[in-house]
Amino acid sequence: MVKPTRHIASINDLSKTEITGIFDLAQTYLDTLHDPILPYRVARSCDAASGAVLATLFYEPSTRTRLSFESAMLRMGGRVISSADSGASSAAKGESLADTVRVVSNYADVIVVRHPRDGAARLAADYCSVPVINGGDGSHEHPTQTLCDLFTLNKRNSSFKNLNVAISGDLRGSRTIHSLVYALARFGANIILMPAKGLELPSHVFNRLRDEMHCRMTPAQSENGHASIDALYVTANAPHQLSLIPEGVDIHVRMTSRVDAVYVTRFQKERSGGKIENTYPTVNAEFLSDAKYSNASVMHPLPRVGELDQSMDTDKRATYFEQAAYGVPIRMALISALLGLQNNHLLKSYDGGFPSSKALSIDQHLDAGIQCQNANCIVHDTLEQPYVRSKFSLISSVPERSKLRCVYCETDIEHFVVGNVETRKFTANVAQINAATSRQLKQFVFFKDDQAALARDYRSGDPLNAGR
Amino acid sequence: MVKPTRHIASINDLSKTEITGIFDLAQTYLDTLHDPILPYRVARSCDAASGAVLATLFYEPSTRTRLSFESAMLRMGGRVISSADSGASSAAKGESLADTVRVVSNYADVIVVRHPRDGAARLAADYCSVPVINGGDGSHEHPTQTLCDLFTLNKRNSSFKNLNVAISGDLRGSRTIHSLVYALARFGANIILMPAKGLELPSHVFNRLRDEMHCRMTPAQSENGHASIDALYVTANAPHQLSLIPEGVDIHVRMTSRVDAVYVTRFQKERSGGKIENTYPTVNAEFLSDAKYSNASVMHPLPRVGELDQSMDTDKRATYFEQAAYGVPIRMALISALLGLQNNHLLKSYDGGFPSSKALSIDQHLDAGIQCQNANCIVHDTLEQPYVRSKFSLISSVPERSKLRCVYCETDIEHFVVGNVETRKFTANVAQINAATSRQLKQFVFFKDDQAALARDYRSGDPLNAGR
Amino acid sequence: MVKPTRHIASINDLSKTEITGIFDLAQTYLDTLHDPILPYRVARSCDAASGAVLATLFYEPSTRTRLSFESAMLRMGGRVISSADSGASSAAKGESLADTVRVVSNYADVIVVRHPRDGAARLAADYCSVPVINGGDGSHEHPTQTLCDLFTLNKRNSSFKNLNVAISGDLRGSRTIHSLVYALARFGANIILMPAKGLELPSHVFNRLRDEMHCRMTPAQSENGHASIDALYVTANAPHQLSLIPEGVDIHVRMTSRVDAVYVTRFQKERSGGKIENTYPTVNAEFLSDAKYSNASVMHPLPRVGELDQSMDTDKRATYFEQAAYGVPIRMALISALLGLQNNHLLKSYDGGFPSSKALSIDQHLDAGIQCQNANCIVHDTLEQPYVRSKFSLISSVPERSKLRCVYCETDIEHFVVGNVETRKFTANVAQINAATSRQLKQFVFFKDDQAALARDYRSGDPLNAGR
Repeated sequence: MVKPTRHIASINDLSKTEITGIFDLAQTYLDTLHDPILPYRVARSCDAASGAVLATLFYEPSTRTRLSFESAMLRMGGRVISSADSGASSAAKGESLADTVRVVSNYADVIVVRHPRDGAARLAADYCSVPVINGGDGSHEHPTQTLCDLFTLNKRNSSFKNLNVAISGDLRGSRTIHSLVYALARFGANIILMPAKGLELPSHVFNRLRDEMHCRMTPAQSENGHASIDALYVTANAPHQLSLIPEGVDIHVRMTSRVDAVYVTRFQKERSGGKIENTYPTVNAEFLSDAKYSNASVMHPLPRVGELDQSMDTDKRATYFEQAAYGVPIRMALISALLGLQNNHLLKSYDGGFPSSKALSIDQHLDAGIQCQNANCIVHDTLEQPYVRSKFSLISSVPERSKLRCVYCETDIEHFVVGNVETRKFTANVAQINAATSRQLKQFVFFKDDQAALARDYRSGDPLNAGR
Repeated sequence: MVKPTRHIASINDLSKTEITGIFDLAQTYLDTLHDPILPYRVARSCDAASGAVLATLFYEPSTRTRLSFESAMLRMGGRVISSADSGASSAAKGESLADTVRVVSNYADVIVVRHPRDGAARLAADYCSVPVINGGDGSHEHPTQTLCDLFTLNKRNSSFKNLNVAISGDLRGSRTIHSLVYALARFGANIILMPAKGLELPSHVFNRLRDEMHCRMTPAQSENGHASIDALYVTANAPHQLSLIPEGVDIHVRMTSRVDAVYVTRFQKERSGGKIENTYPTVNAEFLSDAKYSNASVMHPLPRVGELDQSMDTDKRATYFEQAAYGVPIRMALISALLGLQNNHLLKSYDGGFPSSKALSIDQHLDAGIQCQNANCIVHDTLEQPYVRSKFSLISSVPERSKLRCVYCETDIEHFVVGNVETRKFTANVAQINAATSRQLKQFVFFKDDQAALARDYRSGDPLNAGR
Repeated sequence: MVKPTRHIASINDLSKTEITGIFDLAQTYLDTLHDPILPYRVARSCDAASGAVLATLFYEPSTRTRLSFESAMLRMGGRVISSADSGASSAAKGESLADTVRVVSNYADVIVVRHPRDGAARLAADYCSVPVINGGDGSHEHPTQTLCDLFTLNKRNSSFKNLNVAISGDLRGSRTIHSLVYALARFGANIILMPAKGLELPSHVFNRLRDEMHCRMTPAQSENGHASIDALYVTANAPHQLSLIPEGVDIHVRMTSRVDAVYVTRFQKERSGGKIENTYPTVNAEFLSDAKYSNASVMHPLPRVGELDQSMDTDKRATYFEQAAYGVPIRMALISALLGLQNNHLLKSYDGGFPSSKALSIDQHLDAGIQCQNANCIVHDTLEQPYVRSKFSLISSVPERSKLRCVYCETDIEHFVVGNVETRKFTANVAQINAATSRQLKQFVFFKDDQAALARDYRSGDPLNAGR
């Protein structure tokens, strides 16, 4: 029986078991590729995907992601159709992503989408009858890069558990980082955040690590044993002091502990209006001369534009070209699993999504109630608006602190009021939601604040009690 | 024996028998594609085109046409080379289409051309040793879209005969519509024209339907039985009152008859300088609530940009995504027939072209005599001018009313004078052409009007009689 | 045993034996392609490259070079990944070519690079673990076009020896011409230079023909037996009068000798700021009516933009579309030889490079000593600067006249001074270099002139003698 289609819009759409299953499969593909056809070096391909067609729909420039997906498909004997540039596509005529993927799903068996808007991949998946893979959507996520990163770490270390991974640079705008920190947290690694000034991890990502992935936050220790504000430790499943990320965090790390990997990322100028602080951290031989980095893998998703010095290329710790080299076998494995090639059942039984899949889904008309507060979310794209509604998951992982999470870009709304369309009452005490029946939940409408609710003729009160 | 190459620049390059033959072939490809490879959905490909190469040369943006052609070739085991964007091609260096196709015909077995100029596909065909398929040329034609449209109608209805097809929107600039109305007329369907204000069917298309495809024109009937100016009925092979399309035709239809299909098309802003009337017709649930539309297929070539409401997507009458889904099997069938794959003889014996193929061809040097009056015709492209001459077919389907039809863009010239290079006489009485011998026809030169002829030192008189 | 990778950045990276070996191989591919699959014309492909992947990385627009490489790979059963436009690639994010090829070498078995900078292909080769083929780099070289040109000449003539090849147009900016004149000289053809005014062959190319490829330069003879300044004869291996190319050389040729081929090239406006003299030579029927051209093959690398009249297309001497037709089989042969497909050993044993491979390599830090004086050289590209050093070959083919040749763009520096980092002495008498031991050579540093050396605290003297 044909199972419903799986989509990979977030790294959290894959379970840990599935991820390690993909790694096993990638290793077999890697072994095949590295068995060259003599006398010259031609990588050995296979025919696992013979007859299948991959489409790449890229609304943002890309070399490595698009070409590595295409190479992966071709190395398996599959075929590729490609729209490399929105300027050469129907977007120039004003066509929505939703319509485009509906049409292209007739041309291909699996579609990779890259788009400048957060949440675009999830929207595409909503309208697509074949698997959609997120090739990077705005500042949201880039799950296949994370698969390459994890695979690299996995080959270099015996276990993710208690691995110390320092992450430097633009933690705010880098979709690569967002997928990575979720995955590291879920696999039990410790994360040392070393953001550039003003480019800290978004609070909704940070809070999600803390509230849903059981991370404990602690300032990194300085040499003299005192807590430092220079970096922050995110420890998965460890009973540490709870701490919020400090304001004005600096870029240097003075922790005494061993660092297993330093993950560097470029300034995402296309997401920030192009201005960069001259304090943007540079990783070079001097930075890495500290003893705690003596065995650290130096990683980078590439491209780099100055933040990782070229002189490191010949350093034995340099791992970034190895990461890139795994792009093809990892994507071969993911495509193979998604399409069930060679009778692979890896992604058949799992019903998709990490915790949010169990969350209550709230479907708000765009013209009423609350809207996603992320200006770059796909729901605010005028071309897509006829195809999206304001949809939220209601997250209640921490009692008394319910959140609304946009199902597209996964940005959270922490402060809102809830009204009842029947009783016309609203309250800021959102804890009452937990007391609601599922019938009552369907009557709920969410507003930004009291003013918004009052403007719609709701009165303050207990939404569940018509009388009061 | 290898037959001369067939090209598909117009839907009229295919006979009705050939079109239905392509439908039969497309159905077998569709059945194959829809027989998925289990356990997951991978469409079943074939190897009919194994070893063959398709080139797509697109001088205008496209997603669906280019990708569906490429998918079609790949699903048959063929290969694809692609120039998706003139900005990335030799056009940036100022190379003509004529030279480009001559060169690319060495690289591929069949070439699909899209170009902003009317008639570009015919020019390409003139210089190409392998089959050229028109992927859309200016406002002229888009024959493969029409094959998808007809195939869709054919599956949904028992016969084209007396099918009532209403066509709404930009009938002037839409190449899709021009191919479609020719095909509908030839297959005996009735066409209800519902143009946006100022975007009526070009007069040369209208007159060709009337004069050469035996259509009778009648104003659509209003509810009270009176003729309405709101829409126009084009009835193939029916003895109705002859009528020209009225000036200022409005967009609403108040006919009482059953409509079998409503074909909606977007405003072609790239062909009209971008301005759009705010009376551009929108097809939505309200419009379609009229009883006569209760069983109408709602069709659209896509992309849509507002003229077809998204709320229709879940309506059972919505047929536009079905149209798009047939893009691949239809194009598989066309390529297969053109290349004679699998010993297919469908397109072997027919010598190409609809009525114009029997017309006299008039070859005028660009620097003398009459020129095509369509400013967007490929003959006026400075890059192509060294490669084109002013060539016309002499159409005499209605006695006393000969026309000159540009062989590239198929725009007609109805008013002209004819001179004889030997007698140096000219006349406006073009009926005399019919009396000429074929030797005399070779001596004819055509001018825009008396002034143009006099300016070239021709005198008024009987061109066939040197004495007078 | 797997041999080190060969790269083709210059036509001089191939020996004459290898070039003729490629022609033999190309002929077998051509025979296969021309054996069509009946009943219709589908070129016959093969599966020599089955499973192999070609990447095209094009930082400049191209139709014929990119598509002919892609077709070549596909006709051999290989696969292609393509970045047709730097606007759609990581270059938009500011990634260097060096990093890009390092990454893409994981995705493909062979990479074709086109780039606006001279020497870009050599830089790419330095960072690439798979073969790099130069698809055109700035004004430097275009070796695969030259292979097509030579193959065409070879088919039309019994021998290159004493073949008279006239070359007309932009000899300065045309990379095609630079590769061609090297090859013609090496194979013993005579070259008649007919540059457009101000667009003469660059002096370093001219001098290299003279000094390293044993050409003798002589003014072409006019009708009256006197030397003409209208064209220049470059005679390989012939004991003629040595002559420099005259200033203000005109475009007409009035030589009495037989010309076997006229090679026409367009003005390279993208390399010259777009201005063109109205004296740019046009080759048309009148020009070719001179008796000496009566059997000349008229050649052009295409695209043409006016310098070669379309009326020649039907002339039996027109050879340019034949050149283009050989693009696919020639590139099939080159790829096949580079990858050692079908156990081909053609390019296995040769260690790469023409004379420069035996030259001393001088490695200068960019921040010290002399730099390449070609402003368009890849070493001056800010994106690439972290990846390049000022590297020169020391060319001493003519005694007392040593030159420094940039290893990237191969532009020569004829005037410089040499210092010794140990003795801190420098001299303009570069002949002393020949007396140096290899240990002393490693101590040499090169400066532009006395001032530059003095500014770095070097003193005038014998660099090899610390005492003086």
